[in-house]
Formats: sequence, C-alpha cells, structure tokens
Amino acid sequence: MLTLDKIYHASYVLKDVIRPTHIVKAEGLADDCHVYLKPENLQITGSFKVRGSGYKISQLSEEEKKRGVIACSAGNHAQGVALAATKYGIKSLICLPDGAPISKVEATKGYGADVCMVPGVYDDAYNKALQLRDEKNYTFIHPFDDENVIAGQGTIGIEILNEMPDVDAVICAIGGGGLISGVACAIKNLNPNIKVYGVQAEGAPSMYESIKQGKPVALDKVSTIADGIQVKEPGEHTFEYVQKYVDKIVTVSDDEIASAILKLIETQKMIAEGAGAAPLAAVMYNKLPIKGKKVVCVVSGGNIDVTILNRVIKRGLIMSGRQQTLCIELQDKPGQLVAVSQIIAESGGNVISVHHERAGEGTDVTAAYLRIIIETRNFDHVRQISDSLKAAGFKLV
Amino acid sequence: MLTLDKIYHASYVLKDVIRPTHIVKAEGLADDCHVYLKPENLQITGSFKVRGSGYKISQLSEEEKKRGVIACSAGNHAQGVALAATKYGIKSLICLPDGAPISKVEATKGYGADVCMVPGVYDDAYNKALQLRDEKNYTFIHPFDDENVIAGQGTIGIEILNEMPDVDAVICAIGGGGLISGVACAIKNLNPNIKVYGVQAEGAPSMYESIKQGKPVALDKVSTIADGIQVKEPGEHTFEYVQKYVDKIVTVSDDEIASAILKLIETQKMIAEGAGAAPLAAVMYNKLPIKGKKVVCVVSGGNIDVTILNRVIKRGLIMSGRQQTLCIELQDKPGQLVAVSQIIAESGGNVISVHHERAGEGTDVTAAYLRIIIETRNFDHVRQISDSLKAAGFKLV
Repeated sequence: MLTLDKIYHASYVLKDVIRPTHIVKAEGLADDCHVYLKPENLQITGSFKVRGSGYKISQLSEEEKKRGVIACSAGNHAQGVALAATKYGIKSLICLPDGAPISKVEATKGYGADVCMVPGVYDDAYNKALQLRDEKNYTFIHPFDDENVIAGQGTIGIEILNEMPDVDAVICAIGGGGLISGVACAIKNLNPNIKVYGVQAEGAPSMYESIKQGKPVALDKVSTIADGIQVKEPGEHTFEYVQKYVDKIVTVSDDEIASAILKLIETQKMIAEGAGAAPLAAVMYNKLPIKGKKVVCVVSGGNIDVTILNRVIKRGLIMSGRQQTLCIELQDKPGQLVAVSQIIAESGGNVISVHHERAGEGTDVTAAYLRIIIETRNFDHVRQISDSLKAAGFKLV
Repeated sequence: MLTLDKIYHASYVLKDVIRPTHIVKAEGLADDCHVYLKPENLQITGSFKVRGSGYKISQLSEEEKKRGVIACSAGNHAQGVALAATKYGIKSLICLPDGAPISKVEATKGYGADVCMVPGVYDDAYNKALQLRDEKNYTFIHPFDDENVIAGQGTIGIEILNEMPDVDAVICAIGGGGLISGVACAIKNLNPNIKVYGVQAEGAPSMYESIKQGKPVALDKVSTIADGIQVKEPGEHTFEYVQKYVDKIVTVSDDEIASAILKLIETQKMIAEGAGAAPLAAVMYNKLPIKGKKVVCVVSGGNIDVTILNRVIKRGLIMSGRQQTLCIELQDKPGQLVAVSQIIAESGGNVISVHHERAGEGTDVTAAYLRIIIETRNFDHVRQISDSLKAAGFKLV
C-alpha cells in the first residue's frame, strides 16, 4: 500500500540523492491565474525520475542489490536508474532501443550504467530487458507501476506543500501515471482541498481514456512530441491512484505543447521537454478551472531532443515575425536579383537563403520566381519590406 | 567609495526585489575542475542587472525619485530599471535603439516603463537619453559606472560565499565591468585568497586592453554574439576596481561562447545568453589556472535573442552529427531521386530539404546535383547513409 508515511520516508532517504528544486513564481505566463513552477527539469539527470528509481533502489534487499538492477527506457528513467544504482554502489544494465539519441545513451553511460542497445523500438528493448532479467536474475526496476517508485515521485508533492502551503492546485503531466499518483497521494492526504489535475498529450491519451471507461485501456498507437509521456497503457496501480485522487484530466495538442516550451525558454530561461511543458500548455490554453487560483505546474523534465528543440524554436521565430519566407515573381531579365537584394538590405532584413527558379508550369514563360528566407525584427518589419518590394514593382505571390 | 558595508546594505535592501538564485553543481562540464553555476539567468528579468538598478533606485532622494528615472539600454539594464522603478512606485523612461528585438521592448514595457524608440544604434539612444535627462530633469541610471549600481551587483559575491565558503575561484564576464567590480570587491574583502577572474569576448576586449595598457581605452569597433558585454569602453570606477581586485582577464571567441551556450542547454537545461555563457567557455577551453579547483561561474543572464539561439542550436546539431547536408551527383535520368530517397528512408534518415539542380558549369553536362539536408542520429548514422548511397553507385561530392 502507498501511504503518506512511505512518501515521507522517501523524502528522508532521497536527501542524499537529489538536488533541491525551488518553486519559481513565473510572471506573465497567464493573465487570470498565478502560475508557479516546480522545476524538476533542473533536477539531477534532468528529470524527476531519479526520485522514484532512487527510493526503489534504496529499499532493495542486500540480496537483490547484489544481483544488480535492469531497466528499460528511452530516456529519463534510464538516467535515473543509472545514477541511483551508482550512488548505492550496485551494478545497472539499461536496455535502450537503438534509435535512442546518442546524448541520452552517453548520459546513461556517464552515470555508470552498462548499456544494451536493442535493435527496434521501445517495446523490443522492454522485451529484451525482461528476457535478460530471467536469464541473469537481475532485479527489474519498473518505470512507474511500482509502489516504491511512486512513493519516490510523491516527494514532489510534499516539497510543494512545504514551500507553498497556500497552493490551490497542482498540475502534473501523465504518461504511465507514476508522477501524478505519488504527488496526488501526498497532497490529498495532507490537504484534500487542494486540487490535483493531470495533463496528457492528445496523441497519447491512455490514462484519459482509461478513466473515462473506468478500466485501464491500452491504445494501439501513440504519437506526440512529448516522448516522456508517450505511453500506450497506464499501470494497474497508477490507474487506481489516479481514479482515487486526481480531480480532472485534460489533453493538450503538440502545437500547444510547443508554444509552452517556447514560452518557458523566452520568459523563464528554462528548457523543458514536451512532457515538462504540458501542464503549462493546459494553463495557457485554458483547459482547467483555475481562474484566480494559485497553481503549481510541475515541470517534470528538460531532456528534450535537440532536433525537436530546433523545430520548436524555428516555429517560434516564424510565429513572432522573426523569420519570413518571401516568394517574389520576377521578370526573367538581368539585374532583378540585385534590385530585390538591395531593397531587403536597405530595410535591414538579413537574408538566410535564396532560391531562384525559372518559369514553371502555369506561369508566364518569361517569369522567374525568387524564394527568399529572411530574418526580420517583427511583423511590422516584414510588412515594411513587403511594401518596399511592391512599391518597386515586384509581385509577391 | 565602494565598501563591503554598502554591498551588505544592498543585500538587505534587495531582499524584496530579487529572486533567490541557488548555486548549482554542474557535473560533466569540465574534466579537471569542479564547476558550479550561480544562475542569474533565472533571476527576475532574466539577468543580474536588476540588482544594481534596484539598489541604485532605492537610494535615490525623494526629490530624485519624484523626477522619475531615465536609462538607455538595448536589453538587460532596461528591464532591470523598469522593474525596480515600478517596485518603488516611480516613473521610468527607457531609450532603446529601434533595432532592439520586440521581445525585449515588450518585456521592458511589461515591467512598467515608458519606452522611447530612437532611430539608430545604442549610441544614438544613449545621446537621446542624455538629452531628455537635461530637458526634462530625469535622474539618469548608468548601466555600470556608478557605485550604488556596482554595490547591487556585488551582492552576488556575498551570496556565493554564504552558500559556498570553500570556493577557490569565481569567474564573471566583463562588459562595462559593473558586475565583476562588485563581486570582486565583496569577495576580496571577505577572503583575499579566493581568486576572481574576468572573461571578455575576443571581439570586445575593452577591459582586457585597458588593464594591459594601464589606463581605460576605448575601442573603435566591437562585435560579438555576446551582446550583453559588447561595450566599447570600461567605466572610470570599474576600471579602478578591476585593476585593484581582479586576478586575471582572458578572452573567448564567439565559437567558444556558442559551445558553452549549447552545453548549458544540453546538460543543465538552462538558457544562457552569450555573456552568461562566457565564464563557462573560459573553463571549457582551459583559459584559466583552475585545475583541481572549485570554481563558480556566474551565469549572468539568459536574455538571448531567439535568432542567435536558433543559430547556436543549428550549429550544435551539425557538430554532433544530428543534421547533415549531402551533395550527390546524379545521372540526369528518371528515377534517380526515387532511388536516393529510398536509401535514405530505409536507413532511418529524415529529410528536411531537397534541392535538385541540372548541370552547372564545369561538370558533365548529363549530370545533375541533389543537395539534400537530413536529420540523423549521430556521425555513425551519417556514415552509414553515405556508405549505402555509395554502394548503390551514387557519387557524393
């Protein structure tokens, strides 16, 4: 049974394993409520996961410790298990799908784990881990459906109430449900008036659907930029705790998550991964009944793939008028490129790329197209450049 | 005179203005010393500047406050003055060059300042601010060459010693020199054995040159991605304090700064601006005698322009084998693009852009070129895709 006692015990045990993460008041993220962040992206290993694996591993018997631990993960759980095992002086083996980003593989090795790269996807790595557990007698560390793991994650709930006893609501992302189960158990046992809300990605709503149907359901396919919560099926334990303790679950789209990631970068100077930004996305897009309330969003992690980060930032540049693609129809005669370049340069636009193309189908055969990407200051600046080009007789298409 | 007393007084006064920023131990940033970060990028307004402007404004006479304050800045100082003035209930007017990023202009307005957009660059805005001061009798808040401003920045030194009394060295970036003057004065008065090092950008080494020549010198031209320390001339006061208290100044290149920014993103989940990452760059590239030492890098701010952030990340992707441009010579006959696309898809590469071009000068007239940008997992993956293409008879150029 998961009890408040156990979560307090985990808090005590984890003091030597984790970094303290202090709540940050985040101005300017929402107009009609007071947003605070619990920045577990700044936690050691870059996510809260080290809490659950740390407490779990600390509570193994001497015999289990001697056998060493095994886990399967494409990311945060891997690093948490690796670090915690090393802290307690025991061996760890982590199975990773061979498509895992090199940075996560290197980090896992860096925390002292042996790594087994498994051809295929997460499910293949998971099966390999179970097979190795049976063959070599390792102790398996489940990423979420385990009471000690959940108790470890629940320490976040205690820390939030210690630092901010007057909080009205706490918002967590849900993948397998380990984080919110622990946090909600801690909070509801201490003060049942505080609301606990869950957020899932629209493309991976396994807990949302399970609660709706009153039983754990497995989804065939999940897809979201928030890979940390891209889970097909909730745990048995976590389903029960969520049913018992969580007030409401909502979903957010990948676009909403991307906006929240960018908002955290611009206003808080923090990198969050998709899962970490999902609670803020729910706040920004008014998915929850929190008007006028003091809410804490748990920013669960910051281990975002650099490729995704690149896309999020590029999208942000375009949406804020900082980058613009102009497609200009030219007469196919000498000097046109010079004229366009000059107008852009004089307006202070910075050219990133140019693509010049002779007439294609369906256009005047004497015409050519110029597709030009420029860095701009804002939408006014974009308009000013467009207007200058039009004034010089160029046609923008 | 700048005294330790004054810095302690500033510490006391600023309690209501600033956020506490706790030192973070940053594993994996350097092999041969112990690196800690003082994350002033997580400070309110995204930089330490609010400390200096906050203390300065708090110490104005009632009469000076009534007149309102004026400042000139393209970034962090603007937000610091705006926030501090609003906290103390007085009016502020900030002159900004009209090329300033809209995000910084909006943030400055958001903290309650009136904003005056001045056509031209920083120097034009500065002259406009002085002119308005004289015409309207505003109180001018200098960004660095003012003892109360320096005392405010010095509170960082006190906080570092409170939290980490056994630190061996503290490293600060230098622009005008306000930050390091305050920090070095605090530290050397408390414990002269602790080293204080300064870092400047190679493209803006005004303090470095001034110390070398034994007198403040003005540079004709400065250029660096670290816009927060892009200063042509040190202050009179700051020059003296640096000469008196700072043990050594080194410079770092824009490339080194960009690497440090990326390292902070990947390992610490923190956004630093160029100036904020400069101390870490000096550590990463072994510019300082700190082998085996415990060093604190002051991450002075996180207000990086999104366009620069985009470039830093893109460079990081390429340098880590996560994005690759392939240029392939094709026979100009049907089906070639299909074949190439198939090989890339089967190898798990993700195509971002394709540019197909018929024969240019100096090549076989029947040939065409395919320039294709792909997302890859790492350098091994890049090599694997290149090898598959070569095995299928394609020539990579």
